[in-house]
Amino acid sequence: MKRIYFDNAATTSLSAEVLEQMMPYLTEKFGNPSSIYSYGRETRLAVENARKSVAKILNAHPAEIFFTSGGTESDNTAILTAIRDLGCRHIITSPIEHHAVTHTVEFLDNEDLVKRSYVKLLPNGHINLEHLEELLANSEERVLVSLMHANNEIGNLLDMDAVGSLCKLYNAIFHSDTVQTVGHIPIDLRNTPVHFITGAGHKFHGPKGVGILYINENVKIRPYIHGGAQERNMRAGTENIYGIVGFAKALEVATENYEADSAHIGTLKYYMHDELKKHIPGVGFNGDVLGRSLYTVLSVSFPKTEKSEMILFNLDINNICASGGSACTSGAEQGSHVIRAINNNPNQVTVRFSFSKYNNKAEVDQVVKLLKTLV
Amino acid sequence: MKRIYFDNAATTSLSAEVLEQMMPYLTEKFGNPSSIYSYGRETRLAVENARKSVAKILNAHPAEIFFTSGGTESDNTAILTAIRDLGCRHIITSPIEHHAVTHTVEFLDNEDLVKRSYVKLLPNGHINLEHLEELLANSEERVLVSLMHANNEIGNLLDMDAVGSLCKLYNAIFHSDTVQTVGHIPIDLRNTPVHFITGAGHKFHGPKGVGILYINENVKIRPYIHGGAQERNMRAGTENIYGIVGFAKALEVATENYEADSAHIGTLKYYMHDELKKHIPGVGFNGDVLGRSLYTVLSVSFPKTEKSEMILFNLDINNICASGGSACTSGAEQGSHVIRAINNNPNQVTVRFSFSKYNNKAEVDQVVKLLKTLV
Repeated sequence: MKRIYFDNAATTSLSAEVLEQMMPYLTEKFGNPSSIYSYGRETRLAVENARKSVAKILNAHPAEIFFTSGGTESDNTAILTAIRDLGCRHIITSPIEHHAVTHTVEFLDNEDLVKRSYVKLLPNGHINLEHLEELLANSEERVLVSLMHANNEIGNLLDMDAVGSLCKLYNAIFHSDTVQTVGHIPIDLRNTPVHFITGAGHKFHGPKGVGILYINENVKIRPYIHGGAQERNMRAGTENIYGIVGFAKALEVATENYEADSAHIGTLKYYMHDELKKHIPGVGFNGDVLGRSLYTVLSVSFPKTEKSEMILFNLDINNICASGGSACTSGAEQGSHVIRAINNNPNQVTVRFSFSKYNNKAEVDQVVKLLKTLV
Repeated sequence: MKRIYFDNAATTSLSAEVLEQMMPYLTEKFGNPSSIYSYGRETRLAVENARKSVAKILNAHPAEIFFTSGGTESDNTAILTAIRDLGCRHIITSPIEHHAVTHTVEFLDNEDLVKRSYVKLLPNGHINLEHLEELLANSEERVLVSLMHANNEIGNLLDMDAVGSLCKLYNAIFHSDTVQTVGHIPIDLRNTPVHFITGAGHKFHGPKGVGILYINENVKIRPYIHGGAQERNMRAGTENIYGIVGFAKALEVATENYEADSAHIGTLKYYMHDELKKHIPGVGFNGDVLGRSLYTVLSVSFPKTEKSEMILFNLDINNICASGGSACTSGAEQGSHVIRAINNNPNQVTVRFSFSKYNNKAEVDQVVKLLKTLV
């Protein structure tokens, strides 16, 4: 039974062309990029070329791109240094952020380092921008706004321009967890009013263990991980060269093929949506699924029955990979804080299907056919 | 001109057998270890088996081993959480630590979060244990002692048992940066009085971008990187599976071949020492080179002349990789803080040669022959 992998929002496969680009650095080109001899300069050049490529694609300056160990470290760095170094004493965030954000904000609040506020959501899961402005206008302290670009569980897309403009108006710092969108939709940082964004290689067929943090050139923070002079004194630690080279290559490939890949993947999402609606009575969808929504994610709610409660288990038995929520929370088995926040209906079972360019319509048909028997 | 790589304390090549072990996780086995389906459980098992293997080799419990992005993150986590969570308000360290430690300590001091003291060094570069005890005895606050196991520039080995026993006596927390010794000399954590040690895969023919932090089971800290439930809620972020698998494999290989490899590498170090002494008038060696010293590192001082000031440049031209100090500091080109601390002689030029199992005597002969013409 061939595996069907519909959990691409959790992680994607490393593509063969990305691995090929990484291989020289996993074999003969291992010199330390911080060395002074030519052999180290060769890997340093690879790191700096990767930085330039990433910066160009995101329309940023190379000096604004920092390589990290992944999206979580990047989110932590942005939030914790905004509080430590930029005078923010109040965080406005939403109840449906990734745990890399919510748990960092909770930590700061528990330490009495910030006040935290949650912006209200509209019924479709989008941020209530009027409430956001109200919170910003009434804040007595400098604010850090942390709102994700695309929600990893329901796919809702934030209007970054609108949020960024509000932040500008109220002199707030704006951080956006863009881990689900870097490598998936075009981002133009020169024309987006945001101070920090984050990315993770493994979300778009690049390697695990590497990410980026964009720090707008007008923002001056100190490092979160102290030590050597790597990453222009902003992130210490010997560079993960193959990871960095792989991140850049994966982003290049994703950008080159964006039109075709996004059309293909979006077709799968909407096809599955339609097929489920046609064949499964009582099925529902979470978030603004047909509106401002990422084309990779489809969050489905099934009516709760004895049978449907076993959906994930039965999908697994049939070698189909899908998830109940974010992979980063599934270990805890507490259910999804995102679904609770937007639609706290105890009579539903939620499954997230997320697609990549390697999926196809036949797989959707197979999964829908099976789901008919499982609910 | 074949390259001679004598900079193994900066980074080592990834060995073919380690890469082979990593390859399945760089290709078909990409599931997110935090997923609930079997495909994710497969990679989770790989991560947990890696943890068990590392724990067994270091004689620790698997629950005491945490995977991180590298030695620097591990050092930061240990030091910063000891101050935040364990009530330490005074750090005793040495002037010859790695920047991952010194810059973290300086940060804490600059933020007024700790008092810092430097233990005196003996003329051979070893820690003055009497002074350490004096500092501990006179401290009014709980102390964190941070002293590295093997110095990365001069190779001096710390007596961890002696330092750990003193720390125990004075109820201090003991962190040791063991980045140069994990994978190089046997470490028996069950019988070593230490609270935190650190390791980095790329120092012993494993991958870059992955490290470990050992946290003694009696020490309760909170995470430094907040988010998902990975690493039993201690280090958030999608697991770098290939890195983790590679770290464990590299440590296994290093442990299996320890006797033969350490004898071979040690022979090269002492052979080069003797040859240099024989052929180069005025040559000197930094640290306790023939005593308590790591067998991989040889720090050589040449009399300063117009010619010798160009040694590193000329070694590079001849395709020989060696360094003036730590790679993590060389970008800054400020010279070595370690050499300044132990032997502040402006009439010397210092070069660190560091060896691996892939080096041989013929390479030493070739380098010594060249050095004769360069000084």
